[in-house]
Amino acid sequence: MRRLAIVGLGLIGSSIARGARQYGLADTIVAIDADAGVRDRVRALGLADHVTGDAAEGVAEADLVILCVPVGAVGAVAAAIEGRMKPGSVLSDVGSVKGSVVAAVAPVLSAGVAFVPGHPVAGTEYSGPDSGFSTLFSGRWCILTPPEGTDEAAVATVRRLWEGLGAIVETMTPEHHDLVLAITSHVPHLIAYNIVGTAADLEAVTQSEVIKFSAGGFRDFTRIAASDPTMWRDVFLTNKDAVLEMLGRFNEDLAALARAIRWGDGEALHDLFTRTRAIRRGIVAMGQETAEPDFGRGRPAPAAPRNDP
Amino acid sequence: MRRLAIVGLGLIGSSIARGARQYGLADTIVAIDADAGVRDRVRALGLADHVTGDAAEGVAEADLVILCVPVGAVGAVAAAIEGRMKPGSVLSDVGSVKGSVVAAVAPVLSAGVAFVPGHPVAGTEYSGPDSGFSTLFSGRWCILTPPEGTDEAAVATVRRLWEGLGAIVETMTPEHHDLVLAITSHVPHLIAYNIVGTAADLEAVTQSEVIKFSAGGFRDFTRIAASDPTMWRDVFLTNKDAVLEMLGRFNEDLAALARAIRWGDGEALHDLFTRTRAIRRGIVAMGQETAEPDFGRGRPAPAAPRNDP
Repeated sequence: MRRLAIVGLGLIGSSIARGARQYGLADTIVAIDADAGVRDRVRALGLADHVTGDAAEGVAEADLVILCVPVGAVGAVAAAIEGRMKPGSVLSDVGSVKGSVVAAVAPVLSAGVAFVPGHPVAGTEYSGPDSGFSTLFSGRWCILTPPEGTDEAAVATVRRLWEGLGAIVETMTPEHHDLVLAITSHVPHLIAYNIVGTAADLEAVTQSEVIKFSAGGFRDFTRIAASDPTMWRDVFLTNKDAVLEMLGRFNEDLAALARAIRWGDGEALHDLFTRTRAIRRGIVAMGQETAEPDFGRGRPAPAAPRNDP
Repeated sequence: MRRLAIVGLGLIGSSIARGARQYGLADTIVAIDADAGVRDRVRALGLADHVTGDAAEGVAEADLVILCVPVGAVGAVAAAIEGRMKPGSVLSDVGSVKGSVVAAVAPVLSAGVAFVPGHPVAGTEYSGPDSGFSTLFSGRWCILTPPEGTDEAAVATVRRLWEGLGAIVETMTPEHHDLVLAITSHVPHLIAYNIVGTAADLEAVTQSEVIKFSAGGFRDFTRIAASDPTMWRDVFLTNKDAVLEMLGRFNEDLAALARAIRWGDGEALHDLFTRTRAIRRGIVAMGQETAEPDFGRGRPAPAAPRNDP
């Protein structure tokens, strides 16, 4: 690829820029961001060959333009570059929701430009151009949801980028993507945000107690509840149906579990708690998780105990 | 301390044994476990000076006996050693629920023996004598819930053990402990078990898809949903009231969140998602969590990308 333009240099966009540079996936990298502070960081970090705030100017001449903005902003950016991409070029994105992105981009897609929606299933709780790294996508899945009849060569261009970044590419429909991600990502984030909010609002338990005793399990939830608020607001607003459907299932199951606790049904609890171990084994076996205890957080360094004789 | 007896050599019990040995906290360590397989591992690992399956024999002559069995089993073990501990010795435990443990032990506590209930807020998702390590408690809190009027010297003995293992000791009532842990540990485990169960039971999304795309957030939940089933069954059965109370709060908040999604209230979502970041910052600042992205799971090693030129 000669020229790659990335719109939005946050965690994902800056990781693509770093990986494309490191693995030689594009001759020229153009970084486009509406935020002057982000552009300054991108320049300071040397992430791109050209840095601009003008999307229409930045995408001209690009072979591939990849939108790395919150899903709620994809439509506006696509409209801003309408008619500015060259014929035969490819537009893609990295949004966590695909149905709404397809609907937002279709009406403003320039003639001669193919749209190949994508979603790399990878991330951390940190945001911004400084938080990216070139191996973020290594060994992770990237889902493409090209509409039927999309130019094969365009799909291949996007696939090559992701495979070049170390990802494993799979294709499915936008509808199925949104259902799968609702359970593997969106509802987990929702309940993590929720329990952290619940804990913060208690009167009987102080915030200081919640923090001190968080090693009992709570702290695991705070990691994903520290993710970017704008990105996640947009996810829930744009994948409403699938999220509410999966949340309904979650709530039904939780009600059954609460009932088992109330009535002292130890067998039902033990059965579920045994069954759930198999899923984790599958995730570890497929290389999507470390088998190290505590996520390999690192065992605390052996401190000198206060009463060590 | 001359003689420390540990009943139950799982993750917690074996970590105490390793730490007591490493930091020189007891002259003699006695390991008591009803499971012959566990005893064999304890001998092979050299975790104790004496290993026995007979609790009544093992606790005789001990200055401190610490019960490291699931909370549902504490009463039976306490009954089995009734009258076998020497006068002036101290009994303690490590159960995740304190109200039920106090109620179970009180009727079978021998005259002249002080009971100092305890709970180290630390652990991993692994179980058994091989999974323990001497620094498990380093920098973590240990909560003691001595009944009013408990002999100060007995409390000091237990405090010394935990401080010797590197823990920070705090005391509170059993009732308050059970409320605090319901929100910081028990409900988080419950909803983690629940969502993993929900995901496993879907028809529209295959188990293989759940596993592949788990890096979107789901996998974080599977860690605590891989914890010991018997231990957790007992926690929910014995801390029923506090768990159902906190779960009620969680459900109320989740219903409000679902409503915000359904009605497109982006501001309410963004507000919550911003507020929750502060709690994580507090946990990191208090040394209860790593600030490394992704828990410091370790960034994947830079694999050679398939299209690397």
